[in-house]
Amino acid sequence: MPATDTVRIPLPDHRDYEIRIGAGLLDEPGSWQGLPRAGAAVVVSNETVAPLYAQRLRERLLAAYPRVDLVVLPDGERHKDWASLNRICDHLLAEALDRRTVLFALGGGVIGDMTGFAAAIYMRGVPFVQVPTTLLAQVDSSVGGKTAINHPLGKNMLGAFYQPVRVIADLDTLDTLPQRELCAGLAEVIKYGPIADAGFLDWIEAHLDALLARDKAALAHAVRRSCEIKAAVVGQDEREQGLRAILNFGHTIGHAIEAGLGYGEWLHGEAVGCGMVLAADLSRRLGLVPEGFVERLRALVARAGLPVVPPRLGAERYLQLMRVDKKAESGAIRFVLIESPGRAGLHAVPDALIAETLAAHGAA
Amino acid sequence: MPATDTVRIPLPDHRDYEIRIGAGLLDEPGSWQGLPRAGAAVVVSNETVAPLYAQRLRERLLAAYPRVDLVVLPDGERHKDWASLNRICDHLLAEALDRRTVLFALGGGVIGDMTGFAAAIYMRGVPFVQVPTTLLAQVDSSVGGKTAINHPLGKNMLGAFYQPVRVIADLDTLDTLPQRELCAGLAEVIKYGPIADAGFLDWIEAHLDALLARDKAALAHAVRRSCEIKAAVVGQDEREQGLRAILNFGHTIGHAIEAGLGYGEWLHGEAVGCGMVLAADLSRRLGLVPEGFVERLRALVARAGLPVVPPRLGAERYLQLMRVDKKAESGAIRFVLIESPGRAGLHAVPDALIAETLAAHGAA
Repeated sequence: MPATDTVRIPLPDHRDYEIRIGAGLLDEPGSWQGLPRAGAAVVVSNETVAPLYAQRLRERLLAAYPRVDLVVLPDGERHKDWASLNRICDHLLAEALDRRTVLFALGGGVIGDMTGFAAAIYMRGVPFVQVPTTLLAQVDSSVGGKTAINHPLGKNMLGAFYQPVRVIADLDTLDTLPQRELCAGLAEVIKYGPIADAGFLDWIEAHLDALLARDKAALAHAVRRSCEIKAAVVGQDEREQGLRAILNFGHTIGHAIEAGLGYGEWLHGEAVGCGMVLAADLSRRLGLVPEGFVERLRALVARAGLPVVPPRLGAERYLQLMRVDKKAESGAIRFVLIESPGRAGLHAVPDALIAETLAAHGAA
Repeated sequence: MPATDTVRIPLPDHRDYEIRIGAGLLDEPGSWQGLPRAGAAVVVSNETVAPLYAQRLRERLLAAYPRVDLVVLPDGERHKDWASLNRICDHLLAEALDRRTVLFALGGGVIGDMTGFAAAIYMRGVPFVQVPTTLLAQVDSSVGGKTAINHPLGKNMLGAFYQPVRVIADLDTLDTLPQRELCAGLAEVIKYGPIADAGFLDWIEAHLDALLARDKAALAHAVRRSCEIKAAVVGQDEREQGLRAILNFGHTIGHAIEAGLGYGEWLHGEAVGCGMVLAADLSRRLGLVPEGFVERLRALVARAGLPVVPPRLGAERYLQLMRVDKKAESGAIRFVLIESPGRAGLHAVPDALIAETLAAHGAA
């Protein structure tokens, strides 16, 4: 069993926090020590994850908090909405829980994003802890303080930058993850190679089979290196003024796929995997990377069990969906493009070139 | 006509902003220069204020923004809810407005709080400008970055700390304010004396008639001094970790009155005025101030046209309502009490003493 790795997210105003990565962390008493004191903790989870882990977490937390409540939400991206957010807030208010109450997000990205957003707005902010139980949440969404809910007109359109006080990534919780979701999480792992670390891209190619087989040592390295890269980026640009945008490689087209098909049809990681292939091809068409790089990324995404052909929504619909995306600003749609393996940047791309690329991949 | 006064709110991370106070500022082009550039501005107002000032503001803003939209919400504290917040967000999303869009809150505290909260969460944060048109908003709610909506179970329970980029307090907009609302605003002006500046309390007593008659010079001084005190407090404690709580003098009982009667029955300032009298009496009962101080404050609040006798909700109901208030933490309810004229602090008060005080004032 690998030892616990710790990655620190550097932030101003004493808001630094630790990501702890390892097997068995849920039952490790140290995971829950040194958190803010409060009269109550509230575990927020979903119908799938709660039966697996909520009771164990609750028992551990009862060593630190006199009272530990559990709020169970329906599972799935399509429930990442006002109604679910309100269920968290309604519980906190109905129980008259005060502004010191600590929330624990036990689940994947949807639970983390909603619990974080509820923590951001309840009484203008209470502390929260991320306990990610999916690979995607462990390598991406639980780290960095982006919280949000979806709106019928766009994904993650309402939210806040709000940092957790700790992240506990127990690799053992990945044992119960469906293979499709493991693959979706690998999309975000793969992402960190092209945008920030060509050597990590090599490592992923060499260890993809071990990752797909849930080898704990391979998973530990993948989660740690992903978190390190994300920590470095977020530490330099917490509120996405510039650099942080590179973390959205594959996400502009990915979000359009998700919104266009209806949230939940494709998993977020599946849409991002496919979006990375198209964004790589956009990079090639703008002369930034050679054809061989696009093929290499397409092969890796496909080996990870992810789709590489986008749904045929039509170019106009894609453009419309991407224009409302948060990264769009007045005028041309901006994409995170690969400038060389391990380096990315934000580029405005003419609509005609986007349409041409979509058509070449069967999307138009 | 008085000249423009400027009060600066000092904040870290280049988030400093100016409060400009004066007559005629709405039509002064300089009021709207130097704000963040964007493809669109959105003025949020209500059915009462929009017909009076929205068109003038829109015309001024068209000099700086190619597009200026208007969102008109129903008027009143009872509309400070999810539904109104959603109307702002729905407009922004339906029009596909990007993350540079600047929101302008044109109205009183309700419009300012909701527009600020919408700005805080739309795409995880867009800039906003406060254009307060009530005395209460000019001296209190538009300054300091507290934003929120109400919940059926409590006032301002969901919100964010989110600072405007500028506050434009045009004293001429107070000309159209109903007298009852002017009086309600005076409650928050009076508040600054007991908590922070005994000399200002003397000044208010000497100039109350001029304020009630809407003398511009008196109003200018009252708004400026109120903003200066608030700026000093907020600059030291943006997120209400400690000192900032003193700004809630009168608010613990005030919020209970508002929630107990149903929002909008009493105006916020009316509830705060009455709440200050009771909080002063609590201070006396704990031996902090003499009986004469309570009488002095009661007389001033009454002269300002504000109620000094709380509604008879019963002590149990008051205690229940105050326990869910944000300032309550596990255990005894905490009140902002006057320690001497011009100095306040947070004190835990036993339930029995609260009940006794409520009974003495006819509330129980």
